[in-house]
Amino acid sequence: MDLTDSAFCPRYHKAVEVIGKRWTGVILRAMLLDVTRFADLRAVVPGLSDRLLAERLKELQEEGIVERIVHPETPVRIEYRLTEKGLELHDVVYTLSRWADRWVPLEATATT
Amino acid sequence: MDLTDSAFCPRYHKAVEVIGKRWTGVILRAMLLDVTRFADLRAVVPGLSDRLLAERLKELQEEGIVERIVHPETPVRIEYRLTEKGLELHDVVYTLSRWADRWVPLEATATT
Repeated sequence: MDLTDSAFCPRYHKAVEVIGKRWTGVILRAMLLDVTRFADLRAVVPGLSDRLLAERLKELQEEGIVERIVHPETPVRIEYRLTEKGLELHDVVYTLSRWADRWVPLEATATT
Repeated sequence: MDLTDSAFCPRYHKAVEVIGKRWTGVILRAMLLDVTRFADLRAVVPGLSDRLLAERLKELQEEGIVERIVHPETPVRIEYRLTEKGLELHDVVYTLSRWADRWVPLEATATT
């Protein structure tokens, strides 16, 4: 592999900037575990405000990773679902989870 | 799987916060491709300043992901190497690269 050409990849750079954004990684993990409602997502992530969750979901929609589904019931029910693009992040989240289980000591998580 | 208990994982949260930090993902990818010198790392990542690269390398050392190796030669030669913990990020970086190749259009990278 020619390092000069390949050591920087703009697609990867863009991906890590989108997914690595504060809270986005945890929101994606929860959605992969089938948490789809706004209030449930907020409840899953300690310290995440309504405003920030709404902002992140909007960004993920703009990236085509999440879609907002409105069920026309009374009262209206809204779900956030991963698109195919979003669902295919499963392996990324899974390998990072495994790495974290192996390498991140629980005490290191106290301040986050 | 019990979603209530598992949808939030503090270890994963910590991992994504460390690795997702701006520039860290690209620095790690370059290091996995055997770029080990400060000047080479800076050259690989467009727009990354000396100051920010030094800061990120210091953070990665504090996390035990990178080690700084001083070769006592004249002039002194310094290398940054991934530790075992850092090397085991290979699969994370690899799966994210594959996802990016498939899903991130090149035009989306223009502004990053």
